[in-house]
Amino acid sequence: MKPTLPTIADIESAAAVLAGNAVEAPLLESPLLNQRLGARVLVKAEMLQRTGSFKFRGAYNKISRIPAARRKAGVVAYSSGNHAQAVAAVAKLLGMSATIVMPADAPAIKRRNTEAWGAEIVSYDRHRDDREAIGTAIAGETGGTLVKPYDDPLIIAGQGTVGLELAAQLAAIEVRPDAVLVPCGGGGLIAGVSTALADRLPGVPVHAVEPAGFDSTGRSLSAGERQRCDTSRTSICDSLLAPMPGEITFAINRRTLAGGITVEDGDALAAVAAVFEYLKVVAEPGGAVGLAALLSGRYAAAGKTIAIVCSGGNVDPARFAEALAQS
Amino acid sequence: MKPTLPTIADIESAAAVLAGNAVEAPLLESPLLNQRLGARVLVKAEMLQRTGSFKFRGAYNKISRIPAARRKAGVVAYSSGNHAQAVAAVAKLLGMSATIVMPADAPAIKRRNTEAWGAEIVSYDRHRDDREAIGTAIAGETGGTLVKPYDDPLIIAGQGTVGLELAAQLAAIEVRPDAVLVPCGGGGLIAGVSTALADRLPGVPVHAVEPAGFDSTGRSLSAGERQRCDTSRTSICDSLLAPMPGEITFAINRRTLAGGITVEDGDALAAVAAVFEYLKVVAEPGGAVGLAALLSGRYAAAGKTIAIVCSGGNVDPARFAEALAQS
Repeated sequence: MKPTLPTIADIESAAAVLAGNAVEAPLLESPLLNQRLGARVLVKAEMLQRTGSFKFRGAYNKISRIPAARRKAGVVAYSSGNHAQAVAAVAKLLGMSATIVMPADAPAIKRRNTEAWGAEIVSYDRHRDDREAIGTAIAGETGGTLVKPYDDPLIIAGQGTVGLELAAQLAAIEVRPDAVLVPCGGGGLIAGVSTALADRLPGVPVHAVEPAGFDSTGRSLSAGERQRCDTSRTSICDSLLAPMPGEITFAINRRTLAGGITVEDGDALAAVAAVFEYLKVVAEPGGAVGLAALLSGRYAAAGKTIAIVCSGGNVDPARFAEALAQS
Repeated sequence: MKPTLPTIADIESAAAVLAGNAVEAPLLESPLLNQRLGARVLVKAEMLQRTGSFKFRGAYNKISRIPAARRKAGVVAYSSGNHAQAVAAVAKLLGMSATIVMPADAPAIKRRNTEAWGAEIVSYDRHRDDREAIGTAIAGETGGTLVKPYDDPLIIAGQGTVGLELAAQLAAIEVRPDAVLVPCGGGGLIAGVSTALADRLPGVPVHAVEPAGFDSTGRSLSAGERQRCDTSRTSICDSLLAPMPGEITFAINRRTLAGGITVEDGDALAAVAAVFEYLKVVAEPGGAVGLAALLSGRYAAAGKTIAIVCSGGNVDPARFAEALAQS
């Protein structure tokens, strides 16, 4: 059975649901950063979204549509941390309970904030356990609604509102970018953004940026079918460690994306430091991979206008200090 | 001779000049920060302004009004760093040269960025030299226009646009704050903001927040006349180390302010870390003193709605890492 793919109408519907509930994250620009890169770079600052990442959008679009009769049983989610916080926050806003399955090695800030939103946390071992199976089992026991991190049309449509806003913000300053770079883990954000941009900015190439070792969308695009990652590896880009592209997300991304770009952890740290210095916002390593692709030269930006989605800012202080020390 | 004080009409005129040139910095809020403080806190994020601080506003309002015949001689400014960068950036935007008199102990990021904007830098010793005399002498020699950091009606009117925007942003979410806290050095920002708020939000108390040892506005308000600081002291709040309130700024502030609040350096560092954690933006210590006043309990916020201006984010990475390490 082929999955139903979200359309531009679904993203517009999500935008209507999110109006007044999500932040319209600003588009940031630094002339000194532009000068350093010899390019014009416009950064959609999703760390300024509620709960510090774009994940609030999809979670709100999904959870706010749960019928009243099913709300009492709460929601269940598995997540490396940003989706966890978003689901916990939305559940609290809507008066629902939340159980979150989180990897034991998730950043402390993500775990702490998820708890602060009142969610119950169940830990798992990212290298050994099947988080999807654990989440599904809990949902089966409790009757709660499973809120997947990316492979769900409502989640993808919610994340797609980043693309709608980005297109409108670019239009307001009369910019048509030469390319758009988006961080990619399971592919939900970029599936939504690329669907929105295919409608609003047709012909503008959208590239997935992934950490080395977790370049499953890039490799899947080349192979024409979904490829797995070696999950015994790790990366400091903790928000982008999905084991493989989603079924729905890849069905979209194989049609909408221009290709994948891979960056090293050191590139991501350097980008975190550059975002600090030039844009005065806090990016987590996985959030900064788009800028990492430019700064490292893995994407040749010179002379171009590039729009980047910076997807989140939930990073432990020690990791952030490490990025600053290396810059 | 009494100085001419800028009026709400001057601030509205500045807003018209700045439209499309300055950023409308967003008003940020964190439910988890609110939860920690037991208060509602709304933060005007001026680190997202061009050149990373509110100083761009006053500099643009002043320099863009210099008559064509005088532009060739350029501009001269003395500044601890944020005004320096702003003047350098505006001069470059308008095709003018800039000479900046900066303290030898200014943060490296401020000096580097001022140079990156193409300004010529003249160093002085903050404890020994009279920066105003040096700046005035250079302007006399070159015929350049002296752009004072705060004691100028056009500079104050430019900074006042922060207050106009803040009032409009609060109105949009139907909030009337119980108080507004604004960082205070020479007093230009708070003079402009308090003038704007006296018109837009009459009756809302506006408090100056100053670093210990540099609480000259607070002491001057109590004494009824301008008091000097002991400039042999220092503080990590490098943007707030003015030797005394300005003549014009104090003439305004003595009428508009509810009083002064003093914070310790450690309070400012803790606030920098909290801004990082909860709001995902980069504050410099002097920029974060408003939140420092709440977190330290020096201003009792419980149960109240407080608007804060966070004035800038130009902080050296090592200083920022120090703040994170202490949190």
